[in-house]
Amino acid sequence: MPELRRDPIAGRWVIIATERARRPIDFRPEPATARGRDGCPFCPGSEDLTPPEVLRLGDHRPDGWTLRVVPNKFPALLGDEDIQASGDGIYDRMNGVGVHEVIVETADHGASLGRLPVAAVGDVLLAYRERLLALRKDPRLEYVLIFKNHGAAAGASLEHPHSQLIGMPIVPELVQEELDGATRYYRLKERCAWCDIVRQEQRDGARLVLAESGFLAVAPFAPRVPFETWILPSTHQAAFESTEPEGLEALARLLRELMARFERVLRDPPYNYVLHTAPLRTAEGGPFHWHLELMPKLTRVAGFEWGTGFFINPTPPEEAARFLRNPEEWAPDHGLEGRPR
Amino acid sequence: MPELRRDPIAGRWVIIATERARRPIDFRPEPATARGRDGCPFCPGSEDLTPPEVLRLGDHRPDGWTLRVVPNKFPALLGDEDIQASGDGIYDRMNGVGVHEVIVETADHGASLGRLPVAAVGDVLLAYRERLLALRKDPRLEYVLIFKNHGAAAGASLEHPHSQLIGMPIVPELVQEELDGATRYYRLKERCAWCDIVRQEQRDGARLVLAESGFLAVAPFAPRVPFETWILPSTHQAAFESTEPEGLEALARLLRELMARFERVLRDPPYNYVLHTAPLRTAEGGPFHWHLELMPKLTRVAGFEWGTGFFINPTPPEEAARFLRNPEEWAPDHGLEGRPR
Repeated sequence: MPELRRDPIAGRWVIIATERARRPIDFRPEPATARGRDGCPFCPGSEDLTPPEVLRLGDHRPDGWTLRVVPNKFPALLGDEDIQASGDGIYDRMNGVGVHEVIVETADHGASLGRLPVAAVGDVLLAYRERLLALRKDPRLEYVLIFKNHGAAAGASLEHPHSQLIGMPIVPELVQEELDGATRYYRLKERCAWCDIVRQEQRDGARLVLAESGFLAVAPFAPRVPFETWILPSTHQAAFESTEPEGLEALARLLRELMARFERVLRDPPYNYVLHTAPLRTAEGGPFHWHLELMPKLTRVAGFEWGTGFFINPTPPEEAARFLRNPEEWAPDHGLEGRPR
Repeated sequence: MPELRRDPIAGRWVIIATERARRPIDFRPEPATARGRDGCPFCPGSEDLTPPEVLRLGDHRPDGWTLRVVPNKFPALLGDEDIQASGDGIYDRMNGVGVHEVIVETADHGASLGRLPVAAVGDVLLAYRERLLALRKDPRLEYVLIFKNHGAAAGASLEHPHSQLIGMPIVPELVQEELDGATRYYRLKERCAWCDIVRQEQRDGARLVLAESGFLAVAPFAPRVPFETWILPSTHQAAFESTEPEGLEALARLLRELMARFERVLRDPPYNYVLHTAPLRTAEGGPFHWHLELMPKLTRVAGFEWGTGFFINPTPPEEAARFLRNPEEWAPDHGLEGRPR
């Protein structure tokens, strides 16, 4: 059984995935990223290589499914027990109860969010929403973390387009910090901090990347990495899963266009995105405002940066936003290599 | 001038190093790690490739210096101005005032902390102490962050053994969180949290790696990455720079032995370490307890992990400690490849 452990001073929880304990030799060489369709467990025809699916879209189509959600074959947290928390002197631990699923975003091994049709990107967002709504009902879970690792350098071990979902009995540290920060802000000003960000970015414009009906993509004022970009609803909404399916269409257009621009301007960079949505047990309408944080992996993040929370970023967000607003300035269609100036 | 910017919700500060603004094309291909002695700016004979040194050891030796501390040629923070903080709507910024130095740990390009003589490792620690004591006097600085990136995968852009030091007008987020956590703990129990960790680890033993007169190396209870290891003094001490030079000798023995074991068991892994010492302006004897956090880079840390503060670690610390306590069990001297079992 995996175990959740809490650092008694910093307060962060980590998953110790005891079921796949690794010996020193297992770390070298790094497990290769599976490439190509051969043996890909997410391609059509290999459905029996994954556990039975919990959601499937596109069954009405003659050529079969278009999206599947399946339990992770190597889950970080496991299923059917009740939560058991215990102390060990100054330390706290909990059995690793939770859910770990994979969202296979498309049947097309070589696709990407920037090249899929808008409707297919919409289906990915719809699948996120469906799973969030379903997992809310599990009283053991406090948070459902949805994220995507794209490219080996960003931690993806499979090439086929997919996202992941981890339902867990705790709230991840940075989400809790955001909630605490937003709560302090709200008490002081009676306004949502992210709503204020939206207003200031709309007024200022220098960090705006894209706008669609009801959604913005902005380069945050204090980005940790070059070209960090956030997508957020332009009016207040705590939980992603409250977005109505019609709203997801506009969001899909925005996300697809943003990813297409990343692919063009930064030439298909490895990236991670994480959906920051309100903790499941936060009262409806709390001060949280959901957002998607997208971090391309263009520089090596030194260990000291995530060991201290102190980041050095060589690219001002105003510059990054300008490149993404005007991709043709930087990467004309006829030259993928970009144009040095 | 570089700029410090604060995220209005999460509260973290980042350095926007505006002086080296990067265009999209600058990110590909990744700058290669300089290899070999040719053109190495830290090798003897190339002293004119670095700015004038602020500390030099070993001048009495016939073969020249043994350690140099020099200003970073591409500093993340810059020098001689006064601090100017300003608001911009909901955002906070500060001019990027600070100090960025490089500790060239040895004249020997091919050395490592695990292979240097103990006295040379002691000189590295002495240099850290000297610079901390000197920079305390700069009233603009709130924190001096000392860290080491070893190996390209851990963010080192030069191969020659070196550490870095950044003196900054803010306290890094995770250090502040540790101080806050330790302060809460102290108020509740009237005891230092790290002193309690030392006592529990000494009693339990399962996570102990090494002990030397006055210092311990332990695998923390909730490690973020496989083989994360902390070194800390076994009696209470808030600031690293309060360690007397005699104490540094025992610490050097411990650090050298630990690094030698890492090199043996994990075969010279890339790693980062960060010295967590009390903020400069914390009252003497505060609840902080300095420690060195060492994180080998054996797995790819996915962006979602440092984007959420939520880590998945496949190696229980009790296992890691056992391998490091008994390296001969795992990596006998005659076989660098380890021994599959």
